[in-house]
Amino acid sequence: MKKINVAVAGLGRIGKIHLKNLCRNFPEIKVVATMDVFDESKAIADEFNVPVFVKTFDELLTVDGVDAVVICSPTDTHADYVVKAARAGKQIFCEKPLDLSLDRVNEVLEIVKKSGVKLMLGFNRRFDPEFKRIRQLVVSGAIGEVRIVKITSRDPGPPPVSYIKVSGGMFLDMTIHDFDMARYISGKQVKEVFAKGTVMVDPEIGKAGDIDTAVITLTFEDDTMAIIDNCREAVYGYDQRLEAFGSKGMAQAENEFPNNHKLYTKDGVSGDLPLYFFLERYNASYNAEIREFINALISGGDMPVDGNDGLHSIVIGLAAKKSLAEGRPVLIKEILK
Amino acid sequence: MKKINVAVAGLGRIGKIHLKNLCRNFPEIKVVATMDVFDESKAIADEFNVPVFVKTFDELLTVDGVDAVVICSPTDTHADYVVKAARAGKQIFCEKPLDLSLDRVNEVLEIVKKSGVKLMLGFNRRFDPEFKRIRQLVVSGAIGEVRIVKITSRDPGPPPVSYIKVSGGMFLDMTIHDFDMARYISGKQVKEVFAKGTVMVDPEIGKAGDIDTAVITLTFEDDTMAIIDNCREAVYGYDQRLEAFGSKGMAQAENEFPNNHKLYTKDGVSGDLPLYFFLERYNASYNAEIREFINALISGGDMPVDGNDGLHSIVIGLAAKKSLAEGRPVLIKEILK
Amino acid sequence: MKKINVAVAGLGRIGKIHLKNLCRNFPEIKVVATMDVFDESKAIADEFNVPVFVKTFDELLTVDGVDAVVICSPTDTHADYVVKAARAGKQIFCEKPLDLSLDRVNEVLEIVKKSGVKLMLGFNRRFDPEFKRIRQLVVSGAIGEVRIVKITSRDPGPPPVSYIKVSGGMFLDMTIHDFDMARYISGKQVKEVFAKGTVMVDPEIGKAGDIDTAVITLTFEDDTMAIIDNCREAVYGYDQRLEAFGSKGMAQAENEFPNNHKLYTKDGVSGDLPLYFFLERYNASYNAEIREFINALISGGDMPVDGNDGLHSIVIGLAAKKSLAEGRPVLIKEILK
Amino acid sequence: MKKINVAVAGLGRIGKIHLKNLCRNFPEIKVVATMDVFDESKAIADEFNVPVFVKTFDELLTVDGVDAVVICSPTDTHADYVVKAARAGKQIFCEKPLDLSLDRVNEVLEIVKKSGVKLMLGFNRRFDPEFKRIRQLVVSGAIGEVRIVKITSRDPGPPPVSYIKVSGGMFLDMTIHDFDMARYISGKQVKEVFAKGTVMVDPEIGKAGDIDTAVITLTFEDDTMAIIDNCREAVYGYDQRLEAFGSKGMAQAENEFPNNHKLYTKDGVSGDLPLYFFLERYNASYNAEIREFINALISGGDMPVDGNDGLHSIVIGLAAKKSLAEGRPVLIKEILK
Repeated sequence: MKKINVAVAGLGRIGKIHLKNLCRNFPEIKVVATMDVFDESKAIADEFNVPVFVKTFDELLTVDGVDAVVICSPTDTHADYVVKAARAGKQIFCEKPLDLSLDRVNEVLEIVKKSGVKLMLGFNRRFDPEFKRIRQLVVSGAIGEVRIVKITSRDPGPPPVSYIKVSGGMFLDMTIHDFDMARYISGKQVKEVFAKGTVMVDPEIGKAGDIDTAVITLTFEDDTMAIIDNCREAVYGYDQRLEAFGSKGMAQAENEFPNNHKLYTKDGVSGDLPLYFFLERYNASYNAEIREFINALISGGDMPVDGNDGLHSIVIGLAAKKSLAEGRPVLIKEILK
Repeated sequence: MKKINVAVAGLGRIGKIHLKNLCRNFPEIKVVATMDVFDESKAIADEFNVPVFVKTFDELLTVDGVDAVVICSPTDTHADYVVKAARAGKQIFCEKPLDLSLDRVNEVLEIVKKSGVKLMLGFNRRFDPEFKRIRQLVVSGAIGEVRIVKITSRDPGPPPVSYIKVSGGMFLDMTIHDFDMARYISGKQVKEVFAKGTVMVDPEIGKAGDIDTAVITLTFEDDTMAIIDNCREAVYGYDQRLEAFGSKGMAQAENEFPNNHKLYTKDGVSGDLPLYFFLERYNASYNAEIREFINALISGGDMPVDGNDGLHSIVIGLAAKKSLAEGRPVLIKEILK
Repeated sequence: MKKINVAVAGLGRIGKIHLKNLCRNFPEIKVVATMDVFDESKAIADEFNVPVFVKTFDELLTVDGVDAVVICSPTDTHADYVVKAARAGKQIFCEKPLDLSLDRVNEVLEIVKKSGVKLMLGFNRRFDPEFKRIRQLVVSGAIGEVRIVKITSRDPGPPPVSYIKVSGGMFLDMTIHDFDMARYISGKQVKEVFAKGTVMVDPEIGKAGDIDTAVITLTFEDDTMAIIDNCREAVYGYDQRLEAFGSKGMAQAENEFPNNHKLYTKDGVSGDLPLYFFLERYNASYNAEIREFINALISGGDMPVDGNDGLHSIVIGLAAKKSLAEGRPVLIKEILK
Repeated sequence: MKKINVAVAGLGRIGKIHLKNLCRNFPEIKVVATMDVFDESKAIADEFNVPVFVKTFDELLTVDGVDAVVICSPTDTHADYVVKAARAGKQIFCEKPLDLSLDRVNEVLEIVKKSGVKLMLGFNRRFDPEFKRIRQLVVSGAIGEVRIVKITSRDPGPPPVSYIKVSGGMFLDMTIHDFDMARYISGKQVKEVFAKGTVMVDPEIGKAGDIDTAVITLTFEDDTMAIIDNCREAVYGYDQRLEAFGSKGMAQAENEFPNNHKLYTKDGVSGDLPLYFFLERYNASYNAEIREFINALISGGDMPVDGNDGLHSIVIGLAAKKSLAEGRPVLIKEILK
């Protein structure tokens, strides 16, 4: 069988994970080229014996025989690269979000659609074993009709304020994953968003115009609800839990731990903290999502997370921002108009 | 030591629990009289060797030597009985809520205040071992400054629609306990309420003008938040959980189970359902709250849950109703004005 | 219905528990008399309004109308009191063990048998909700044919060495409960015992001729096995767990905790210690066993734990002592011969 | 840095795992040759681009530049291959056990010792995150002086009877891992063994002269104890748990699960079964043990599991067999004589 030739753009933290998985775990594909703006990243390409390393996305697209691109570069390059890749007829995997501007996202998706290539967005949590299991229980009917979805998502610590300033704000940078999970778990579309937030972690975040602690209520089109709570800092580590409550039962996804030991001493019963952050907790999910991308390339089937999914998460994020700013629930159609 | 003479009004489900606890577990007190509108309830009084059984609250107050009354009669009698007891100079324990009308509650509390008697309201969940432990961890500073409180409260099944029609609605009937818990756990006052709700359990509940599934966001005066989710029906039983997340950690109260066994079979790992409903789950709390009432009578100290606590829960409930009706967040001061 | 008249002998720690339960929770019976060698114990009888307090067992038996006796006096009085009660035609509940001498136990049981009265022995753990649930799962067939029973039983701390000296040794004093549980859970008879033990907690226990840490293997008549591990000291509190493994599954009984909270901090995830000791952990079981005793008196049915059960536990204990002393497995029939 | 050249002998189930890990996860080494008696196994070598595939161990040793061999061939070849590799001056990783004959094991270890090469034995469970964490807690002093070690080890189902006939018996084939864990967790040497066993899973196993269900008591040289329970069949999957109880506390290692979800329905609270068998459960440990082997090769330090560890496990296994056969505890020195 002819191998699929893949090019990887961006060799930062996530780029390296995808490159490693692509090179080691997928005999069906061959990584033929990599791209990064930093010269030093060539060493990474060399470590995995990737024959070509270039410094611009344009050059990457000219490499001979590239079938698909995996875009892991900074967020502000996503839209441009996706457009270029689509016009060059390459299949596309792109890290989320496509762009922070809704107009730009719509424009990009239109171009992708016309080009006929497929686009998968990197909502990796859909492939996490804990969350996937809950989705399976919903799909199987084990919990009946979903009434309430609850998502807890807290980071071990905040990113630098410099990052926060360009992040698009907590809802588009952090909660966007939870918006996608609410849609994924329930299989429903969001109708209305109400967001409350405050600054509890670092006043500098507030000065940068953002919040660090939030509670968001989503109302789905059938009037059932999801609640999300976020914080940029949980001193005990990455807190990623989820619950789906329905007419026939309730399914909970718990945090994951490096081990399950319990220690009994005179001071109490204790165990280790959850896996520290997304690289540890979602390690398996990164491999699984690329697995699904490649499967879809081979089968010609639909992408499991497409541009529309990316669009919805951004729209919900923009509605949450508006809700917070105006102190009222905001309808999704206000954003989409 | 002279025993405290207690009279119990109302020998329904909760009345019987209080009567039994008072008679069996508190040698410091003596139940000298009971009252109920039904003749049949005399048998209950007899079972516990209570010498006097009357059919009106007025008669009860004339029984010789009554120091305190425990009011467990239907909600629509609470305000009247409290007023009468206060005017008769009796110490008062009253089941929640005092009344569904805010004006009436204010009036009653004013009368109680002038009378100089003490009033404790039956928010029994404050005395539940699970929730009390979380409050202790908050007070001890173990979780630092509280950022988010999360409360899940779901009943095993809905009450009759006939009951729902006179209940004051889900927020005043069911969520009122959770409003009190949010205040109790955080030690904070609520500033704003946003409520979403729908009918998922029984269309008859909707026809009665009520909802059966809800999500409520409370914003405290310091801008931190609480989220409550409710449902009138959880097929797996009574779901009563709570979480306090703060700057130094997070504390979770779990459901309680009749036992902790685990069964491993070829089909999975399983265990029993949580304790079925409030009588089972909060059994210990009913005894503990009466214990605290009696302690306060003996010591002359403050009641652990006073009229003001009752007032706040009702105000939050009214704000939630208004929020649901008007589709917007409602400030507490809009209700209090 | 005529009430059953009960007399309680011995008002120490366990005696008080039984007296309290009998007086408060069982309207079918009336405690008509109590007995204790100490004058001070009369105050206890008074607290529960028991009309008669005597200082000898002989006097107790002469109290008018006594139907049944509950014997909670020290171990070395059990055999005598049971014999006297049987000869007086009283139904008998007696705390374990009947006696430390096998000959004496046989003699007593013979007398009880001839007298026609019923005898129940206080193996309260059979009535613990955790363990009872495991037995139910065995009986229901949920775990199939039992292959291995595992019992962990560790005390929070050792009794005084003075007590240990007259206790009959760890196997007859402490493990005797576990021997009964092995028989109860499996529903099988023991064929062979192998015991290993050592002194890890306190050298004074060794000087007194006893051990404080032990592992015992029981082989049932069908060649399946049970393993018991004991220690006189577990710094984290009372450790009482049990597991039944069978052809169709495995059932585990866990420790019980005052609450189920979890605290996440930067140092780990923690919870409270198990209930401290037998009074806390087995609180419910004491009430339940007396419940069963009274039920059997009323129904005229078999006692749920009879003299034969007491005999077996002592025989296994004696076999364990012999096994430890001689460093070899000991057959039950060696003891019974 | 010059890479270490590794040859892999045996490409069965375990051989493939080691080959994959060596090829994908360890840039410090290069797999230069593989060997297997079956022609078909060449495809495996090809998949990982290993340049040389041979069909005999002698040929493998002649491949140019081999520094170390990883022996994963059937048990009856281990001793021969280790001797040949040692004589050829290759560093050796060998799957357990070295041999079922104690004399042969002693002879092989003598030859290895004289040859000056290093030998690591594949007791992979020492590198399992659950068990390693318990060992760390023991070493750190968190549980104080170890009093009792408890090990549960049950397979999801028995191997074919044809395999059992040549396996050396349950103790040398299955329990041998647990014997090593008892020594590893406690850091102590075994003095005496008492084993009980029976046939509960399949009468054919009994006809083959083996047992399928067992309980083994180990006594360490300091008179503290370990208890192991085994079964060839646990219908709920691979049951691998461990507990260390000491003077300051107790540490438990739990089973590992594919995910931690809980499902509440009207029938109970349930979750998935543990990871199915050793390939799933100990997946991480295989990589970690090869990691340690390579680290020791690079650093020149001691092997984390050496020939002596292999010897001890076999000696304990032989003592267990003798104990079962003779119905008495057997001293290790009886075997070592």
